[in-house]
Amino acid sequence: MQAGFSFALEAADGPARAGVLTTPHGRVATPLFMPVGTAATVKGVDIGRVAETGAGMLLSNAYHLHLRPGEDAVDRAGGLAAFMGWPGPTLTDSGGYQVFSLARQVKVTEQGAFFRSHLDGSPVEFTPEASMRIQERIGADVAMQLDHVVALPAPREVVAAAMRRSLRWAERCRSAHMRPDQALFGIVQGGLEPDLREESAARLREIGFPGYAVGGLSVGEGPEAMDRTLRATVPHLPADRPRYLMGVGQPRDIIEAVAAGIDMFDCVLPTRCGRNSLVYTFAGQVRLRNACHASDQRPLEEGCPCPACRHGRDYIRHLFLAGEMLGPILASIHNLTFYQRLVSRLRQAVMEGRFADTRRELLATLAVAGSEQSPQE
Amino acid sequence: MQAGFSFALEAADGPARAGVLTTPHGRVATPLFMPVGTAATVKGVDIGRVAETGAGMLLSNAYHLHLRPGEDAVDRAGGLAAFMGWPGPTLTDSGGYQVFSLARQVKVTEQGAFFRSHLDGSPVEFTPEASMRIQERIGADVAMQLDHVVALPAPREVVAAAMRRSLRWAERCRSAHMRPDQALFGIVQGGLEPDLREESAARLREIGFPGYAVGGLSVGEGPEAMDRTLRATVPHLPADRPRYLMGVGQPRDIIEAVAAGIDMFDCVLPTRCGRNSLVYTFAGQVRLRNACHASDQRPLEEGCPCPACRHGRDYIRHLFLAGEMLGPILASIHNLTFYQRLVSRLRQAVMEGRFADTRRELLATLAVAGSEQSPQE
Repeated sequence: MQAGFSFALEAADGPARAGVLTTPHGRVATPLFMPVGTAATVKGVDIGRVAETGAGMLLSNAYHLHLRPGEDAVDRAGGLAAFMGWPGPTLTDSGGYQVFSLARQVKVTEQGAFFRSHLDGSPVEFTPEASMRIQERIGADVAMQLDHVVALPAPREVVAAAMRRSLRWAERCRSAHMRPDQALFGIVQGGLEPDLREESAARLREIGFPGYAVGGLSVGEGPEAMDRTLRATVPHLPADRPRYLMGVGQPRDIIEAVAAGIDMFDCVLPTRCGRNSLVYTFAGQVRLRNACHASDQRPLEEGCPCPACRHGRDYIRHLFLAGEMLGPILASIHNLTFYQRLVSRLRQAVMEGRFADTRRELLATLAVAGSEQSPQE
Repeated sequence: MQAGFSFALEAADGPARAGVLTTPHGRVATPLFMPVGTAATVKGVDIGRVAETGAGMLLSNAYHLHLRPGEDAVDRAGGLAAFMGWPGPTLTDSGGYQVFSLARQVKVTEQGAFFRSHLDGSPVEFTPEASMRIQERIGADVAMQLDHVVALPAPREVVAAAMRRSLRWAERCRSAHMRPDQALFGIVQGGLEPDLREESAARLREIGFPGYAVGGLSVGEGPEAMDRTLRATVPHLPADRPRYLMGVGQPRDIIEAVAAGIDMFDCVLPTRCGRNSLVYTFAGQVRLRNACHASDQRPLEEGCPCPACRHGRDYIRHLFLAGEMLGPILASIHNLTFYQRLVSRLRQAVMEGRFADTRRELLATLAVAGSEQSPQE
């Protein structure tokens, strides 16, 4: 692996793993959940409070930072971590996903993605080389290759073509990437087709990366299809490198992905749901706007050390009904804390060789509030 | 004074004073600035961060809490401080001001104010007795009498009539108020007329209150008229009781009011301006959206210990331009910290007998950024 970077496995329990990822900005334990700071801020949460949730590494987004404030501004401030005031490691997504989800008038060619900014309609060019140049200027510890993401379901030939294009872009990213204090991860594509996933993983291993991501999941395929695809993909990734499942997901998804051998995660759900008054607990989801919480002075979760849980549910519900910013702030902090406590429990279970029991127990209690499902957000 | 409450003068330097107000929820030093938590939250700032600004006492609003979540909900949670998770003293405004600024279809009679809620149009009755009952249930350490506020300028007979009605309401509040662990303050009215202010103060002293507020200022009369009115009013208030200037104001207003002998303040400006990207510093105001801050890695204020000042101005400006919640959050925290540092400096100056010099120095440096004036908000 690259100088300044290493990944050490500390324990395994079946396919589930516990390890330590070392970066130029410090070490983080895995399984690892990265809060999402799209525009160099975890929405609604100051960086000190982010640290207090137990987070070790943050994700930000090359597409958003390129458009605003621009990679030069981030570089001038000393790079992403310094810009955000974050003392630990960071990772930037390449922009591949946003090109397809946010940009207007996208044209994707073999050369790259050409599109108009979702902010002002100005023309922008995201080639593999441009994404590397931008991510190097932003200066996260880990950069991601540019990939071609397609929405599922999609015809097999479309999925295969996007996967093979992503492989060619992976090579171009590998060639263009120069920054020695930044690790570049490859991204496995291939939709829900096991053989395409295997082909993608094998070819990425040949190119050689210090870490491997699984992309193109949690795009509408449903949890069972995701689990199945992970179990078909992860065995083809090298055991001595970190494995990162991009953009996932619900707590049950994370548990099942760790069970399949994934080490790293990021997801907007804790903050997005928090802003919408949906709260995660180990006894299932809580919809704070529901009238049943109007006189409930219990915290969101007994034993949770977060600042939200110093208040009663009645208070936080009041904040949401009154349209007060503090409602989204506190619910986001709580949810981020929940996700850190979740991966911490999974890690502990792997270390102690009781992952199967912990997995079963967590899935059972998390499913209790089945009546309080997440909205399609 | 009432059991559980006391006010001790520690030093005076001319009319300017430094003291300590003791309440059932603890002691606070004066001059005192109370952040405003209208709906039981200082907008955008979690209660731990509020405490870190140096704030000792918070203000909330009987009108808003009555409409939502209702005084019963606050009472059930153990009262305002417990509901907010605030370990220190609190004060509630009576609702008099909001009746006139927010309510629809207000009808004020000798009996009280009858109006329709600004939230849902439902009919609400705010008599002096109702305000006392509501404030007792909310349970702040200090309650305010219901008063009749008029916008300035206004004809002398209108101001006089509202002042005398406020005096009659003061008596009714005094009679209706029962809660022994809550202090009730009277409010001096009388517009800009020195003789009306004197009449109001003298009559309130006869009724007898553990503290006296000056109301009906900062309603459009301009800073010189406010200073002049304060100098004509404060000498008629008892020296051994705290003096509270309601809803004021800009830093220069606070300095001048302390110079006139005021001990307590509250104002929405730190948070309201913060949400609008206007930041207070001892070298004047800073408009963060201005392009001159785009590459400025200096903190908002050198030496400020607040969490915002761990970042560069470039970062906080980026947050505002990107529409990120963290911009308003950080600017609010900084401004609240600034106000606490301001009153702390004024207190220190009084204690050390150099108030006149400190006043002159502060007014000079605060006025530097005269080109960056506050908007009419």
